[in-house]
Amino acid sequence: MKNSLYIVIIGCGRLGLYLANQLSHVGHSVVVIDIDEGTFDHLSPDFSGFRIEGDATHIAVLKEAKLGKADVLFATTHEDNVNLMVAQVARKVFKVPHVLARVYDPRREQVFDQLGIETICPTSVAAEMFLLAVASERATRGDI
Amino acid sequence: MKNSLYIVIIGCGRLGLYLANQLSHVGHSVVVIDIDEGTFDHLSPDFSGFRIEGDATHIAVLKEAKLGKADVLFATTHEDNVNLMVAQVARKVFKVPHVLARVYDPRREQVFDQLGIETICPTSVAAEMFLLAVASERATRGDI
Repeated sequence: MKNSLYIVIIGCGRLGLYLANQLSHVGHSVVVIDIDEGTFDHLSPDFSGFRIEGDATHIAVLKEAKLGKADVLFATTHEDNVNLMVAQVARKVFKVPHVLARVYDPRREQVFDQLGIETICPTSVAAEMFLLAVASERATRGDI
Repeated sequence: MKNSLYIVIIGCGRLGLYLANQLSHVGHSVVVIDIDEGTFDHLSPDFSGFRIEGDATHIAVLKEAKLGKADVLFATTHEDNVNLMVAQVARKVFKVPHVLARVYDPRREQVFDQLGIETICPTSVAAEMFLLAVASERATRGDI
C-alpha cells in the first residue's frame, strides 16, 4: 500500500481486534499492545503487524512499540483511565499526530476534550442512533 | 407533546438510562424495565415515566408494561440473548411496530437480522468511526 500509516493500537479486545485486523488487511503497519497475550489468538491469520504483550501505561512498552514513529494511536482498552493516560502520553511525550481514545463513561468525554484528546463513546453514539429511530417512527406516523 | 409515542425500554444501564431520561424529557410516554430496582436511582428527577422492576423475559412483566400498546421497544440490557428474546416477543407476540436491540457481539447481528430485528452494535459503530479517523489522517497527509 502506497504511503501506509504506522498505527499503534492499545487493547486487543473486540474493538482493538477488529481495527487491527481491518487496518492490517488494507496494508497499514499495525502494532497491537495488550496486557494479556491470549487476546492475540483472535487476530486474523493474515494479520501482518506486530504484537506486544505488556502494560501500555509503561513508557518502556510504548518505546518498544516505536510510538514516536506512529501516525495514529488508538486507545481501546476497557479502562477509560488507562485510555486517557496512554492517549495523553502519546500526544505530549511521543507527539503522535492523531490520537483517539474510546471512553465508556460519557461524563468523561469532557475531561478528555479539555486535555485535547479526541474520543469516541460507543454509548453516546448508540444512544443517538436509538433516538434517530424514534424520530423516524414519528415521521412514519406523519407526526412531524 | 402532540402525538407523543409510547416507548418501552428494557434495561436501565447507561444506555437505557440515557434514552429513558431524554425521551421522557421531550414528552414521550416511557416505561423502563430492569431486573435491578437500584438502577432506577439514576433516573432524572423529572423523569415522568413508569418503572417496572422485573425480568423482561417473562411475558407477565411485558404485559404489565402494556407492551401491546407500545409504538417502540428498545432492548438495551447487557445480555445479547435477553435482548434478542425480548425483541422477538415484542415483534411476534405484541406486534410492536418498531423494535430495536443493542448487540455487543457483531457476529450476532446477522442472527438478529435474519429474525427481522433491527440492531445497533456499539462496537461496530465505534470501529467505523475509528476507521474514518484513519481515512482523515491519510487525507491530511495528502495521500488520498
